[in-house]
Amino acid sequence: MPEPFARRIRAPSAPEAPGATWSNALLIGDEIAISGVTARGTDGRAMGGDSMRGQTLAIFERIEALVTAAGGVRGSIYKLVIYVTDIARKDEVNAARRAFFSPAFPCSTLVEVKGLVFPDLLVEVDAFANRRVDLNAPAMAEA
Amino acid sequence: MPEPFARRIRAPSAPEAPGATWSNALLIGDEIAISGVTARGTDGRAMGGDSMRGQTLAIFERIEALVTAAGGVRGSIYKLVIYVTDIARKDEVNAARRAFFSPAFPCSTLVEVKGLVFPDLLVEVDAFANRRVDLNAPAMAEA
Amino acid sequence: MPEPFARRIRAPSAPEAPGATWSNALLIGDEIAISGVTARGTDGRAMGGDSMRGQTLAIFERIEALVTAAGGVRGSIYKLVIYVTDIARKDEVNAARRAFFSPAFPCSTLVEVKGLVFPDLLVEVDAFANRRVDLNAPAMAEA
Repeated sequence: MPEPFARRIRAPSAPEAPGATWSNALLIGDEIAISGVTARGTDGRAMGGDSMRGQTLAIFERIEALVTAAGGVRGSIYKLVIYVTDIARKDEVNAARRAFFSPAFPCSTLVEVKGLVFPDLLVEVDAFANRRVDLNAPAMAEA
Repeated sequence: MPEPFARRIRAPSAPEAPGATWSNALLIGDEIAISGVTARGTDGRAMGGDSMRGQTLAIFERIEALVTAAGGVRGSIYKLVIYVTDIARKDEVNAARRAFFSPAFPCSTLVEVKGLVFPDLLVEVDAFANRRVDLNAPAMAEA
Repeated sequence: MPEPFARRIRAPSAPEAPGATWSNALLIGDEIAISGVTARGTDGRAMGGDSMRGQTLAIFERIEALVTAAGGVRGSIYKLVIYVTDIARKDEVNAARRAFFSPAFPCSTLVEVKGLVFPDLLVEVDAFANRRVDLNAPAMAEA
């Protein structure tokens, strides 16, 4: 039987809240659709605390967990839309991208919003991934 | 003759403003691209009035109208990016998602912006849909 | 040898900053993924100066350069997400869209954010393009 075109994706490290009215991730063909990810832990506190770098890294780990659950790899993440609450701290986002990704880097959009879903959240990331893509394949880094 | 790869999509309940410099919806292959949708009515007033839940529901109806005009169904909507002007009212967005969608829910990103195109608008929704997808198919709900 | 599924895209008029932790554009199948584009010039000043229309036009030119480098045309741009710092100046965005695009227009989402990466930037644009699409093909304008 052929695999269905669309499929729910779940990862233990990125659990859906009880009663959630959204899916954390869906596989649509080879494209991996993902809800905006924050660093909010199951205990209600932000992983990474007051560090924008720390929160961003925790978010990247969660995104990778969802992408891996969908059959992709870290390099399958090809675009990020990063919403921060304080653009003056953008170097922390940069440091997190440098620590987590390697060439070819994903595309990235960065804007400062007025607020996120909980006051202690400093950053939320909307990621786009495709399980046929690996930006860390040797040919991509050289191109 | 084969259907063209790209096609304009129109729905009477989501009319384009006269002289608009954007298309409300385009079919790109099986993907349905949609402009950010607000509750602004043709009389210039927001459908749903001062209720964020009401405006969000009016928006979802419009998005569904465009998706249906493109050959999809409600369950073809697989991702939402929801921009609100007051994140403290996020429970109203939640209530609208619960009233309109059913499992598997679309992915959803929610951020608070500084402003929308007209002052009485409380919410704008950017939707992603694919006419090959139906998140309300029995197999999706169970997965 | 078949063309790889993913490929980096570069255009001289939209150079990546030295040490950038993002790619300006990637070709994913026929889809062209692009980072949020601003009017920031290599001299650190905003092209278009204090004009939101001017900055937006400079951005559209850069997006077109990237899309062209990926094998597309201006009409391959099928969706814009436009982040502005002052929504009261939205007519300038409208004027830029009218000057640059022609029917069928791309989809477009417009929101006001709290801030962009540099204080003199008035607008940032996230563009979606597909090299199989040409919205300016005669059949599209008439439909």
